[in-house]
Amino acid sequence: MRPDPSVPETVRLARAGLSRLLEPGDLPGTLLPAVLGPVAALEIAAGRRPVGAAEHAAYTRAAAEAGLPPRQASLGRALERWAGRAAALEPAADLARVRACGGWFAVPEDPDWPAALADLGAAAPLGLWGRGDRALLGFPASRAVSVVGARDCSHYGRRVALDLAGALAARGWTVVSGGAYGIDEAAHGAALATGTARPPTVSVMAGGVDRFYPRGNAQLLARVAESGLLLSEIAPGGTPGRFRFLQRNRLIAALSSGTVVVEARWRSGALSTAHHADALSRPVGAVPGGVQTGTSAGCHRLVREGTAVLVTDVDEVLELLQPFGAAPAPEPEAPAADVDGLHEPDRRLLDALPLRARSRPERLARVAGLSAREVLGGLRRLEERGLAEGTGEGWRRR
Amino acid sequence: MRPDPSVPETVRLARAGLSRLLEPGDLPGTLLPAVLGPVAALEIAAGRRPVGAAEHAAYTRAAAEAGLPPRQASLGRALERWAGRAAALEPAADLARVRACGGWFAVPEDPDWPAALADLGAAAPLGLWGRGDRALLGFPASRAVSVVGARDCSHYGRRVALDLAGALAARGWTVVSGGAYGIDEAAHGAALATGTARPPTVSVMAGGVDRFYPRGNAQLLARVAESGLLLSEIAPGGTPGRFRFLQRNRLIAALSSGTVVVEARWRSGALSTAHHADALSRPVGAVPGGVQTGTSAGCHRLVREGTAVLVTDVDEVLELLQPFGAAPAPEPEAPAADVDGLHEPDRRLLDALPLRARSRPERLARVAGLSAREVLGGLRRLEERGLAEGTGEGWRRR
Repeated sequence: MRPDPSVPETVRLARAGLSRLLEPGDLPGTLLPAVLGPVAALEIAAGRRPVGAAEHAAYTRAAAEAGLPPRQASLGRALERWAGRAAALEPAADLARVRACGGWFAVPEDPDWPAALADLGAAAPLGLWGRGDRALLGFPASRAVSVVGARDCSHYGRRVALDLAGALAARGWTVVSGGAYGIDEAAHGAALATGTARPPTVSVMAGGVDRFYPRGNAQLLARVAESGLLLSEIAPGGTPGRFRFLQRNRLIAALSSGTVVVEARWRSGALSTAHHADALSRPVGAVPGGVQTGTSAGCHRLVREGTAVLVTDVDEVLELLQPFGAAPAPEPEAPAADVDGLHEPDRRLLDALPLRARSRPERLARVAGLSAREVLGGLRRLEERGLAEGTGEGWRRR
Repeated sequence: MRPDPSVPETVRLARAGLSRLLEPGDLPGTLLPAVLGPVAALEIAAGRRPVGAAEHAAYTRAAAEAGLPPRQASLGRALERWAGRAAALEPAADLARVRACGGWFAVPEDPDWPAALADLGAAAPLGLWGRGDRALLGFPASRAVSVVGARDCSHYGRRVALDLAGALAARGWTVVSGGAYGIDEAAHGAALATGTARPPTVSVMAGGVDRFYPRGNAQLLARVAESGLLLSEIAPGGTPGRFRFLQRNRLIAALSSGTVVVEARWRSGALSTAHHADALSRPVGAVPGGVQTGTSAGCHRLVREGTAVLVTDVDEVLELLQPFGAAPAPEPEAPAADVDGLHEPDRRLLDALPLRARSRPERLARVAGLSAREVLGGLRRLEERGLAEGTGEGWRRR
């Protein structure tokens, strides 16, 4: 889908400007376009004209409704904050820059704007810079799952991420992740390899999409941009910083119907994605691991704190994502025990049967503590199941 | 504590006889002594005299109160069941046999009978055959923890069992387990090595205490009998069978204030101990592990089904056992991140600071999207924390 031609270029330019002016999560900066429209919002935010009295009243009302504390809502303080970047705004150049690398800039006014982002409310992004087939942007969050975890993952974590993301992708789920080393990398890679959804995988970056970051993943991210989507709310050239990583995580959480943390230490950025998903009432799964190395301590913490459900395989993840839409996870295949379905007296009789020697019913009754009737009936039932065999000399286990 | 001399020898003999006559969990057989006293109960159960009309009425009332279905409650059927073993009863010989190996037979009438067993109600054992210092029998369940798990445990499971049981024992907890290979073995061994409680460890057997079973654990069990306690409700000479293992697990659960499953496959006897503990409203913990080998699938199942709380170390186990009596588990020690305690604008400022080159405040304001006031205040705060350093040429990270 191409951007809607009915969206005026002024709107796209204004939002591109706002996207460079404002840091993610700057709520006054998000409220302003929501209340006054993006064009007026940029004029005011960039200090090109003063805010009108009616505009200020409308903004103040919206800020109060959004629950912003007065200090944080103050437009005066916000304008001071924005002034430093206002002079250097060149939204047309930014748009040209993203187009130069085959990308685009989507705005909430576009018909293919991901509907799931609305759940972020005032924290929704001002726009999305993207690379990849624009027709894929409207992918449904209801068939997308976020798979995230530690950068410095263990061999075990990588293995689980490959298996889990690969299995989800093979079943038609879009795998959303953050493009980082470790678990993210494995999740994207597995989805590219086995994915059947369009897009098979989506990588949400913490910096501009014009650069592949981290550089070691450049090849992987180029493949994501080719077959899937690379998205960011940061304008081209923007560098990723810790704060932007944390904000970015809310987009990963919002663009999917649930988040699985594959491996994470006690302190891990992946936990922030889990908490964002939880705050959005999207289910969170966490994969357990060994307790002695600490590499899964963050996953265990999420389970202990009740944020996440413990998940061990793709079926359990699907049960989490579609609690009403899918069949419950099947029990793992385990060889049925030979005592399944036997009632207690028969189990005791089976316990009492010798393996090699043979035992007469009278003796079995004494050993098992059963009546003669129970023993005779039980031997017949065990024989039918092929668990006992009797001759004139007595009975034994088979 | 020696057995109370005021308990008549006839009572001990009668209970010893009942203990050989009846299989664990045979509810009519447990109700009979509860209603009529052990001496009359043995006379009737062994078929030495018929049950009186008043006795039968009292028994029937008790069976109804205990919720036994009529078929299961039928005394006639029970007598048929018991007849096979009745002829061979030699309780005096059984008592001599246990004494010959330095053991004893405790009965509920003894003042040192473990009070916690009362929680089993009608399923309480008829008596306990034991080895070890009889003075230790009254150990408090409130300072005992059951540590159980798979026989065919992994290297990981054994390691965790050693660590966990060792740490619990070192903090004065009595470690209760089942004496089996694998996790049980590790739990007993660690408790013997580091335990400070008396007894440091208690092993509840599924067969008679006169024999060490399994034979490969004979040396370990001999040490348990020497420093701790070996207990069983099965009369001397009794062989362990699958049914008896499952029944035995209710005693492990009842004799402690909580149960920890260290490692268990999807189907594992250790899960039955967990379910018994849960049924007794005693907390259950389960240690997670890798998801790819299936060796911890039973633990994960307990957590997913809500039976167990996920636990990863001794502090979390203690928090489970003493939810009100102990301090909550401390957060694992992790190096404090340098951004801890910084508010958002300062974190963004820190992200914006170059590592090698130097940056002037005006530029930092633009890069971080902050006002001049925020940048100057922030640089001062970062400098105080040793995170930034400034000269006439500008600022950088330290």
